[in-house]
Amino acid sequence: MRINRVLLAGGTHGNEFTGAFLIKKFEQFPQLLSGYSFAIQTILSNPRAFAAVVRYIDQDLNRSFGENFSEEEDLIPYEDLRAKEIQQLFGTQGTTPADFVIDLHSTTANMGLTLIIDTEDTFTLQLVAYLSSIDPSIKVYDSGNSGRSQDSLRSLSKFGLAIEVGPVAQGVLVAEFLLKTEALIFSILDYLEKVNHGEVPSLEQQLTTYRYLKTIDYPRNASGEIQAMIHPQLQFKDYQPLSPGEPMFLSFDGNVINYEESATVYPIFINEAAYYEKGIAMCFTDKQQILDFRF
Amino acid sequence: MRINRVLLAGGTHGNEFTGAFLIKKFEQFPQLLSGYSFAIQTILSNPRAFAAVVRYIDQDLNRSFGENFSEEEDLIPYEDLRAKEIQQLFGTQGTTPADFVIDLHSTTANMGLTLIIDTEDTFTLQLVAYLSSIDPSIKVYDSGNSGRSQDSLRSLSKFGLAIEVGPVAQGVLVAEFLLKTEALIFSILDYLEKVNHGEVPSLEQQLTTYRYLKTIDYPRNASGEIQAMIHPQLQFKDYQPLSPGEPMFLSFDGNVINYEESATVYPIFINEAAYYEKGIAMCFTDKQQILDFRF
Repeated sequence: MRINRVLLAGGTHGNEFTGAFLIKKFEQFPQLLSGYSFAIQTILSNPRAFAAVVRYIDQDLNRSFGENFSEEEDLIPYEDLRAKEIQQLFGTQGTTPADFVIDLHSTTANMGLTLIIDTEDTFTLQLVAYLSSIDPSIKVYDSGNSGRSQDSLRSLSKFGLAIEVGPVAQGVLVAEFLLKTEALIFSILDYLEKVNHGEVPSLEQQLTTYRYLKTIDYPRNASGEIQAMIHPQLQFKDYQPLSPGEPMFLSFDGNVINYEESATVYPIFINEAAYYEKGIAMCFTDKQQILDFRF
Repeated sequence: MRINRVLLAGGTHGNEFTGAFLIKKFEQFPQLLSGYSFAIQTILSNPRAFAAVVRYIDQDLNRSFGENFSEEEDLIPYEDLRAKEIQQLFGTQGTTPADFVIDLHSTTANMGLTLIIDTEDTFTLQLVAYLSSIDPSIKVYDSGNSGRSQDSLRSLSKFGLAIEVGPVAQGVLVAEFLLKTEALIFSILDYLEKVNHGEVPSLEQQLTTYRYLKTIDYPRNASGEIQAMIHPQLQFKDYQPLSPGEPMFLSFDGNVINYEESATVYPIFINEAAYYEKGIAMCFTDKQQILDFRF
């Protein structure tokens, strides 16, 4: 296996400043990305949304890939046009196909540094195990069952991942998160360099991944208006176990709504700002220990 | 002095959910605001911005009051129309004039629970001293020199204040902050009730206020693009002293930019999301001890 081109994308959501400003930094200081055995191309994925400081103009760009695009140009959402442009450049059939995509995101949830993967193939698992060995605080979220393996920007190439960092407000640049994300990018690039040199390190430790199960909405009334908030005991508790009988929501009239299913789950994206309109208060995941991910 | 009507406003900035959802809660449960010797009216100040989850539609509503409104209806920004409507209802010359305005806000800065006042008259100082005596963690910010005493929603009435709570992301409802803001509202209403009964408590302790000095922008290039972030040592350090020689910004090329003025200041609104477009990285304030604020 050889990596010829890496695509580094940020601002896929225009109000997630960590990734957008990292792309602007790399474009201002291109020497930071020189000296690798593969080409590295950067892209500010949604420049119109970044300029307007919104997640998207017409629709979520990170749900706009992999479709059959319409021919009626006038009616096409901006993000469909943009996805088509990016796909024609960096997709597997594109003019400069990317072998690996790193897409930079941030969240208002307390997800620390999270690697989002869509498959648990050996290559990907070895990579994230390597990254976890460098920084054990990094979490690995397998979103494979969520649909993102078909419609996200990172689905452009056979291999890739998203970096999610938080909690950070939309439209805000927090230096600590920019620096941590940047360090993680360089660890990924270093690993890909090792791959090209046939020097993939052998790792012995086990790997923990959190696998997407389903999404949970806020309690709403018949008009769709939210009637309860994330319970204070659950707020910012991403990746921590939620067991039957524990509080999930606190209603405006003071009632506690407990988690009533039978299995312990590990909620993530708890109170993500962008997910209110999607009807998502949090995502439930299942914690998995992967014991053997070696070739 | 007698209070006949209190206006409780939220969603003046549509993406500040704490206040907006408190107003929706009070409108759903009006009995919460019953039993006072004054009328309490609630208003979701900017319903179109709240529906769109943005700060404003055309311009900042909280900078739209007190102007001479144009007659050309077609060209008038939505927020000017809305300010005019609100003023015609609750202004001193309005149909149902408010004697006291409480306007609910939130911020991405680490300002905890802040009371924003615009004047240091005896009535206002006694009120905020009472509130500080109940919760000593509350900060009092006197924005009188910032322009808000002329153009903010709270400038509608002779007396009033804004409650600012954070850090919380735009478009997110954090239960802890909603509950704290609600408790503070009830403390204010209780105090106003005491005023109407001539039972204003005599307070002996001194009061600390932070007075607006000026705003500081991010370092930018000739195109206006941000070239540096809030330094990690300053991030979330609202109300803490910033002394000459201490770091303020960290540039994308790794340089630390220090505070170089001669006097220690107390920055607030550090890294407020909504202030990037206003050219404000933080506001400097001066810390004041007020020893005698009694009648």
